[in-house]
Amino acid sequence: MKTKYIIGIDLGGTNLKIALLNTNYKIKSKQFLSTKCFKKKEALITAICDSIIVILAASNLSRNDILGVGLGLPGPINSKDGIVHFFPNIPGWKEVGLRKILQAKLKIPVSLDNDANLMSLAEFRLGAAKECKNAICITLGTGVGGGLIINGSLYRGSAYASGEIGHVPINEVGVRCNCGGEACLEAYVGNNRILEQARKAFGRNITLEELSVLALRKNKLAVKIWDDFGRRLGIALTGVVNLLNLDAIVIGGGVANAGNFLFNKIKQTIDERAMSVQARHVKIFKAKLGSDAGMIGAAILVKEGI
Amino acid sequence: MKTKYIIGIDLGGTNLKIALLNTNYKIKSKQFLSTKCFKKKEALITAICDSIIVILAASNLSRNDILGVGLGLPGPINSKDGIVHFFPNIPGWKEVGLRKILQAKLKIPVSLDNDANLMSLAEFRLGAAKECKNAICITLGTGVGGGLIINGSLYRGSAYASGEIGHVPINEVGVRCNCGGEACLEAYVGNNRILEQARKAFGRNITLEELSVLALRKNKLAVKIWDDFGRRLGIALTGVVNLLNLDAIVIGGGVANAGNFLFNKIKQTIDERAMSVQARHVKIFKAKLGSDAGMIGAAILVKEGI
Repeated sequence: MKTKYIIGIDLGGTNLKIALLNTNYKIKSKQFLSTKCFKKKEALITAICDSIIVILAASNLSRNDILGVGLGLPGPINSKDGIVHFFPNIPGWKEVGLRKILQAKLKIPVSLDNDANLMSLAEFRLGAAKECKNAICITLGTGVGGGLIINGSLYRGSAYASGEIGHVPINEVGVRCNCGGEACLEAYVGNNRILEQARKAFGRNITLEELSVLALRKNKLAVKIWDDFGRRLGIALTGVVNLLNLDAIVIGGGVANAGNFLFNKIKQTIDERAMSVQARHVKIFKAKLGSDAGMIGAAILVKEGI
Repeated sequence: MKTKYIIGIDLGGTNLKIALLNTNYKIKSKQFLSTKCFKKKEALITAICDSIIVILAASNLSRNDILGVGLGLPGPINSKDGIVHFFPNIPGWKEVGLRKILQAKLKIPVSLDNDANLMSLAEFRLGAAKECKNAICITLGTGVGGGLIINGSLYRGSAYASGEIGHVPINEVGVRCNCGGEACLEAYVGNNRILEQARKAFGRNITLEELSVLALRKNKLAVKIWDDFGRRLGIALTGVVNLLNLDAIVIGGGVANAGNFLFNKIKQTIDERAMSVQARHVKIFKAKLGSDAGMIGAAILVKEGI
């Protein structure tokens, strides 16, 4: 039998990333487009289809060589019926039957899921959470997303909307969150909030990278910002591990590179505040698959049909 | 074939409750003992065995008529290996192989699990959460316990220590909790804390029943205490539903009888603070099986062998 390939796609608010993978999830080629170039839903769908055709042609493959197309998408997705409920950060999408549309255009089987779910699936099958049965995978960025592995399977929730660790409240009263809630974790540790805290502390604009370098050099203001970040994430995770008694917490996204002191502060907070059995049992890992995780997870979704 | 029966036992810090059930989980007879009468572990184990022998004799049954003995126990339990890790409120128990001990004495198959897990299992199979796939069942008492149903099964966690909704922090900084943590839900809404708040507000000792009656009569101080209770429970549950996207929240324990205003306040808080999909999807029910839930859950554990 001829070797088959999989197309793995990761659509974010900023980039549309498309990869050709073999069935062992090795990326053979990939290409990035800027999501913002495609203002309308139809233009974005056409761009996805065109990119797939281009990546196949460049590798001398036809649609018969492709097992399926998997897509990780930035919002709540009914993965069973292949429907996008909406995208919080890309306007114009509401209850879109994307699987049906793409399958009609491409004549290739299509699978969809939420991007954080697919990142978690990838880290669980091939990355940092490989030996774990129950885990949460977190992406730290503008938003704070998450995906859950429960009893060795991706857990999607009753309406495909699970994993929202960014919207666990960490105070009774606090800042308003973009989700409409109050005092959510994301409202304290989303990238924009960290940059705002840094601007206030240093009296000028400062990048997250510079903030990390300053903390490594033991700059007190920078250390304080990362300490607060780790402590707050640790408090939200204390609730999660007391509730779910997990094996592992996997942390990815740009901020995960801030340095060991961030991981140490998270661990210290959980050790101090979580119940002893749950705290002893949980391990904290840095995500292993980096920005490829979404595309790899999309390919796993296709191959495993889950 | 002769009809079989099941023994369902619910051991609490206060009462040891023993029931004889048929295989449709109907309670044929039950008896209560005071847990505090048995100071030593061995005395308590002997009391359990003696009670089983008494209840069998009274119903004219022999051990061959019994499918098994199920026990719901107040602490973390390795239900697979039948081991009690410890009981937070009954001294003298540490890593006790209780299943092996009881099976040797009784010559009947024995199953063990945590009491909140078995209450959840009972409400899920026969009670308020019967049609649900993903649910949390909460018991409000001196402690605030919980059990999780995930994808239609009891979820026990990686080290048999899941479901601890009472130990989800609801503030970054707050009162110390009995578990060693800080600002846990239980530290605000455990019965003793509510009684303390009531004593401060009214300048005298007041029971929970009286506090409910006063609130029903619209006494402002009493309404405020129950409002704070519902709001705080609602905030912890906001995190839980954003994370797990549940179908149902089942609330039991004495305080669940406080009145509809408690349930309304919980619902209102979740509606205001949880994400729209998760909030719309979750229903809140009062537990149906009351104080029998633990014994019924223990019987389900025996029959279903889960």
